[in-house]
Amino acid sequence: MPEERNISPETIKRLIIYLRCLESFKKKGIKIISSEDITAFINIQPSQFRKDLSFFGEFGKRGVGYNVDSLSDIIKKILGVDRKIDVALIGVGKLGSALIQYPGFKKINVDIVAFFDKNPRKIGKRVGNLKIKIEDISNAKSVIKRRGIKIALLCVPAEEAQPVADNIVEWGIKGILNFTPATLVLPRDIYVSSVDMASELGNIIYYLKE
Amino acid sequence: MPEERNISPETIKRLIIYLRCLESFKKKGIKIISSEDITAFINIQPSQFRKDLSFFGEFGKRGVGYNVDSLSDIIKKILGVDRKIDVALIGVGKLGSALIQYPGFKKINVDIVAFFDKNPRKIGKRVGNLKIKIEDISNAKSVIKRRGIKIALLCVPAEEAQPVADNIVEWGIKGILNFTPATLVLPRDIYVSSVDMASELGNIIYYLKE
Repeated sequence: MPEERNISPETIKRLIIYLRCLESFKKKGIKIISSEDITAFINIQPSQFRKDLSFFGEFGKRGVGYNVDSLSDIIKKILGVDRKIDVALIGVGKLGSALIQYPGFKKINVDIVAFFDKNPRKIGKRVGNLKIKIEDISNAKSVIKRRGIKIALLCVPAEEAQPVADNIVEWGIKGILNFTPATLVLPRDIYVSSVDMASELGNIIYYLKE
Repeated sequence: MPEERNISPETIKRLIIYLRCLESFKKKGIKIISSEDITAFINIQPSQFRKDLSFFGEFGKRGVGYNVDSLSDIIKKILGVDRKIDVALIGVGKLGSALIQYPGFKKINVDIVAFFDKNPRKIGKRVGNLKIKIEDISNAKSVIKRRGIKIALLCVPAEEAQPVADNIVEWGIKGILNFTPATLVLPRDIYVSSVDMASELGNIIYYLKE
């Protein structure tokens, strides 16, 4: 595989979209696809698809198409999800419970293997019909360290976001998907990405009002 | 109120964060706050807070602080959520169900008043302990038109995203919060904002690998 340099976040995000499409094709038993097949329902140009892949090598056969299984494997390797990625989730409220059961993460080979809360009434309870139980946040340090978990989904109330983030980073977390409205201040080598659904919705409302 | 022009999406997003903080203060019975009180746990500079508000007028009293109730009302008015905003949700899968129960929207005065699915086994069922039932997608047109709903949360499978979006726009939807991985192609006057959690997580994994 050629050296991967200067790959934009947009390309990476599209690769993740392609991967999920390929996984859907797989489920339906489809073996070979064209660039048009994969880009049609996500409204991406076939040429964009081919360009995105070209950063990483030559895939697919002219006039034949792409092998679904092997292209999926290749993209998984590029993204670093060719092995299952274990992540932890902190804060099992309404949103946290939903994320634990959200199938979209499994499709990119990510598994929420441990989830923590500080509420004694939640600890030991199951979420949906999953086997794993909600663990006491006071166990998070040892679980994260022992299992070498590097990524956490942060779903605690806004006022707890920064102190909890400080802690989990100390325990070895390197990447945080932040679902709280708080802006986290963390060391530069920690990769934080924020998802704030209420903000996105509020923005839509404001701009429709204008 | 002075004319609001050139207000950046970042300012609007912070106003939404402030609003949620103010609502939390309200719940705790706090009446007066300083700019430091509100910005401390969200890691925003007090000066940024004052600057954001200054676009819209002069609020708060030097040496006294901000009245929680009235500042909350003012921000609601700026954002256009001084009256309850009714939105619809399309696609009641795992994520859709979670969003219906997510308290973060209520905090900004947004109410998911109708949700639709095409799966006959879901139609007529309740979500969590809510009173409203899942409606047949074939009723969406009349409900959206009758209630004058302008905003929809789109949670259908990727391959259905574009046709469903085309339909709801035709029925009067002007803003879409898109939770599918599909890129929607819609008329220019339709405001679309996308939330793709799996993509955000995949990005973190890729950059940690690097």
